[in-house]
Amino acid sequence: MEVKVVKNILAQNDGIAEENQRRFKENGVFAVNMMSSPGSGKTSILERTIGLIKDEFKVGVIEGDICTTADADRLKKYEIPIVQINTEPFGGDCHLEAHMLQKALDCLDLSSIELLLIENLGNLVCPAEFKLGADRRIAILSITEGEDKPLKYPLIFRVADLLLINKIDLEEYLEVDVQLIEENVSKINPELPIIRISAKSGEGFDQWKEWLYRGIKEKTA
Amino acid sequence: MEVKVVKNILAQNDGIAEENQRRFKENGVFAVNMMSSPGSGKTSILERTIGLIKDEFKVGVIEGDICTTADADRLKKYEIPIVQINTEPFGGDCHLEAHMLQKALDCLDLSSIELLLIENLGNLVCPAEFKLGADRRIAILSITEGEDKPLKYPLIFRVADLLLINKIDLEEYLEVDVQLIEENVSKINPELPIIRISAKSGEGFDQWKEWLYRGIKEKTA
Repeated sequence: MEVKVVKNILAQNDGIAEENQRRFKENGVFAVNMMSSPGSGKTSILERTIGLIKDEFKVGVIEGDICTTADADRLKKYEIPIVQINTEPFGGDCHLEAHMLQKALDCLDLSSIELLLIENLGNLVCPAEFKLGADRRIAILSITEGEDKPLKYPLIFRVADLLLINKIDLEEYLEVDVQLIEENVSKINPELPIIRISAKSGEGFDQWKEWLYRGIKEKTA
Repeated sequence: MEVKVVKNILAQNDGIAEENQRRFKENGVFAVNMMSSPGSGKTSILERTIGLIKDEFKVGVIEGDICTTADADRLKKYEIPIVQINTEPFGGDCHLEAHMLQKALDCLDLSSIELLLIENLGNLVCPAEFKLGADRRIAILSITEGEDKPLKYPLIFRVADLLLINKIDLEEYLEVDVQLIEENVSKINPELPIIRISAKSGEGFDQWKEWLYRGIKEKTA
């Protein structure tokens, strides 16, 4: 009985996600849903990414958060379109859902955006269950979170199209085995491409930028 | 309509939480619900804590996880009673609920436990919404997660009875302002006691042990 309800919610969500996907297609927007734990560095990655590519491509951002606009405020300096979704009016949800994104898209001129970066809420579980209609879903894991996370939170690694392993600049200070993180990822999803990055030093951003470029070109071709 | 459903779920949960609380009282068990993001160091804190006090008090552990027994396996060496709750049969929930704890308690001889440490799932949102019936709820935040987390995930800091700020040994390697974390916490909950700890170096564990002792003595008096 309970499972049925969950299925209905997910089915309804997926229907709206398909509508969002249609809007991205019509407008030639490459949309990326960014999922991770709190504090893995999503906003810092956004900052460096936007700085790197905003002169070449038209970038927009959707920020998910329960109740603050702190992340959106950090991105204001780039003078790109940003929409904040606060989930508090939706019951304080710990993840974005397709209907929230749908409302946010109404606030954007999609015809003037080529890359839309969607920062989901900090959570390794529920964001993976709710499709938004983005072209790609990426997972971000900080090396400070430990090697076991892919095994403990497998769904996000199963559904992701790319994994960014962030804070790689801290490797020398931590007792963490990044190789083991990658081995654990490949036990869950051997096909998942991985890029090691540091939003602080910029390591790996060439490769991440190239991955974004390929996606944008696919949609604007 | 949707909000109503959420309220019913929470009301039902709270009823079972009260039953759990009654069982703790009858058996003189001091139960602590440990909540945090993935990778904040809950299991490492458990390891050091159990090592420090298991010869003085009878300790039991309940481990919450979606699908693995990895954390429980790490604690086997202490030869204390451990029950693993996997939420996968409950729909892969991202948090523990009172009815899951109720089932776990059936697997423990509560009369032979004085301190029950309950490791919730890694998530800064939903665990704070669902009471389990524990005597205390504690939040754990790693300094690697950034200063803004109390403002972005306020509920957990509002409901907690204690905050452990972990990985304090990494302070010198990170661009993080621990004082600012504490100021942000006090904006949300000025009454919340805070202990800075390191599960790696043991810093702050005297104070944390004392906090636990006070609780245990209250229940066994």
